[in-house]
Amino acid sequence: MIYLDYASTHPMRPDALQAYAEVASLAGNPSSIHRAGQLMRERLEEGRTLMAAALGAHPLELLLNGGGTEGDNHVLMGLSQARGYQGHLITSQLEHSALLAPARWLQTQGVQVTFLPPGPGGTVSPQAVQGAMRPETFLVSVHHANNEVGAVQDVSALAQVAHAGGALFHTDAVQSPGVLPVDLHGWGVDFASFSAHKWGGPLGVGALYVRRGLELPPLLLGGGQEKGLRAGTQNAPGVYAAGVALRAAVQEQPALHAHLRRLNDLMTRLLAVSDTRVPGLRANHTPAGSPKVASFTALGADGEALLMNLDMAGVAASAGSACSAGTMQPSHVLTALGLSETDARTSVRFSFGAATTAAEVTRAAELFMQAARDSRA
Amino acid sequence: MIYLDYASTHPMRPDALQAYAEVASLAGNPSSIHRAGQLMRERLEEGRTLMAAALGAHPLELLLNGGGTEGDNHVLMGLSQARGYQGHLITSQLEHSALLAPARWLQTQGVQVTFLPPGPGGTVSPQAVQGAMRPETFLVSVHHANNEVGAVQDVSALAQVAHAGGALFHTDAVQSPGVLPVDLHGWGVDFASFSAHKWGGPLGVGALYVRRGLELPPLLLGGGQEKGLRAGTQNAPGVYAAGVALRAAVQEQPALHAHLRRLNDLMTRLLAVSDTRVPGLRANHTPAGSPKVASFTALGADGEALLMNLDMAGVAASAGSACSAGTMQPSHVLTALGLSETDARTSVRFSFGAATTAAEVTRAAELFMQAARDSRA
Repeated sequence: MIYLDYASTHPMRPDALQAYAEVASLAGNPSSIHRAGQLMRERLEEGRTLMAAALGAHPLELLLNGGGTEGDNHVLMGLSQARGYQGHLITSQLEHSALLAPARWLQTQGVQVTFLPPGPGGTVSPQAVQGAMRPETFLVSVHHANNEVGAVQDVSALAQVAHAGGALFHTDAVQSPGVLPVDLHGWGVDFASFSAHKWGGPLGVGALYVRRGLELPPLLLGGGQEKGLRAGTQNAPGVYAAGVALRAAVQEQPALHAHLRRLNDLMTRLLAVSDTRVPGLRANHTPAGSPKVASFTALGADGEALLMNLDMAGVAASAGSACSAGTMQPSHVLTALGLSETDARTSVRFSFGAATTAAEVTRAAELFMQAARDSRA
Repeated sequence: MIYLDYASTHPMRPDALQAYAEVASLAGNPSSIHRAGQLMRERLEEGRTLMAAALGAHPLELLLNGGGTEGDNHVLMGLSQARGYQGHLITSQLEHSALLAPARWLQTQGVQVTFLPPGPGGTVSPQAVQGAMRPETFLVSVHHANNEVGAVQDVSALAQVAHAGGALFHTDAVQSPGVLPVDLHGWGVDFASFSAHKWGGPLGVGALYVRRGLELPPLLLGGGQEKGLRAGTQNAPGVYAAGVALRAAVQEQPALHAHLRRLNDLMTRLLAVSDTRVPGLRANHTPAGSPKVASFTALGADGEALLMNLDMAGVAASAGSACSAGTMQPSHVLTALGLSETDARTSVRFSFGAATTAAEVTRAAELFMQAARDSRA
């Protein structure tokens, strides 16, 4: 099997799994005051500290939660609820469904929402945000690296525009840690969502960055954990493992970025060369964006057959986000970028990881060309 | 260290840890349509099926989530939101803070809430619920086994009263699986909350039973996982491990119950005998209740010193729920049972597990008596 779906999920790193097992076999609730509880709290806080250091934040600014979807929901729902579902928020058409779905629900509650279309190269420009700002805009939420085409947004500039207009700024940065440098204090954002399974940490563990001094209503009420914002026994083994994985991932980030760049360029070159053999093959990803993802459209192919043929040949790739897989809806990211629904349906996203080899990419490119030819036949 | 805080959390069982590691090292998002994703989905569904079988439910009735607090919040917040925060709900004064905190918040939004006081032995009687029912009562929520004194509620009779009055019935059954038989279909409840780390499964994994045909608004919006009720990448390794752990725990349940009964009786006998040496020692737990917990009050002792002395002597016990530890508030369960705040502050909860030995219990009882004497001195 050639696994080229790392943007969907990354298997747990061996070092993270070892860290997890070490802590999970201990007894102790981090909220307990006895020594067993204190030892768990130490592991929990070590995990938080490792994550904060890797992301350019202070440990007290990381709210530990269950993942990126939870973080996105918490910020949008929480801030809107606190304002009685009044006011205006700005986001983009390229966001993950974890952002778009709550934004659409908030519209039904009375919040006004602007979904900005992307400009050339899949970027959301500060000028576009500036133009959409209103006196009642309370939040701008634009992701960092796109999960389908790799476009990277200038969140620092976007945050400045939001702040200048009196709004807060949130970014879903789920696809970035370990692939691109993340520097939350340097970026100057107010909120940022992260998910540990994207960097080789455990599933069900995430972090929401909440800039010091900001208020956010609680998501879950109960025992008062996480400053009262997210009640429930904290996942000490999971958080510790997530921190261990992120420390390693960030240390390896420059080397991994170079590796992914080579693989991405290789696949893009192979499939561009192939244009003469398979007419209508087109790359959708942003050349200067995150090298983790490469997206190609095989014009005129049968989308479903294309993916099935790839799968039968042993290549795990995706038609878009895994989170909307199975729906057979065309990717909203590709249609926002100007592709027709038909063309979006014949598009495949490949995404690479540290274990991916050039030989695998070459083989996948060959199989993709074959599958595109077969699905047209 | 003598760990007597299993009601707070249970270390992960070795078989569960092995199951977790096996799946966590694989690549694949259960929402992906390729084979790698399908394999993960199989593990996810196997975990769900194992849990459903152990709890007396159909797999489609289990909503996989992050734990008991999330389940409790989801039911209370979701049903109240769907009714525009109108109407009346009934719960008890003995509930976990994961239930009480959302109930109190809902009061601020306009929901009327009755917090029923317990009767003798810490039970909430069907008659008491009956008497509190109103035409606008939409939910009755009473837990199954109490986490501090072990009282077990007749959830079947309570559900019948709720249904007769046109209300739904929810139970927080977090303390029961593996200790007491759980039979959701037999009980006839509508919703039930569970948390895997209480039975030796992983932290951050839980299940909310939603009886077939019932509607509940979503908690997290996004990729549409869990029938759209709880978006976010599903934790396949965690759910699989939770199922493996629960299958084993339920097989061992009768033997464990007998073991816990012996330990509980031993400690109760040792500390009752000691009454002559330590005047004012009193048991708070329900003799016929769950044998997992034993609670004692050392009248006139210094509560903080008592726990500190126990901890220094190597005994991990609790002043109440770990979730409200550190607050130095007296246990709301004990005060609801009639203890004064002063007496509640000098109470200690011990809770036992499969690995607990009679020698440990004997030693802990001796140390408790010593600590009670010392803290009075």
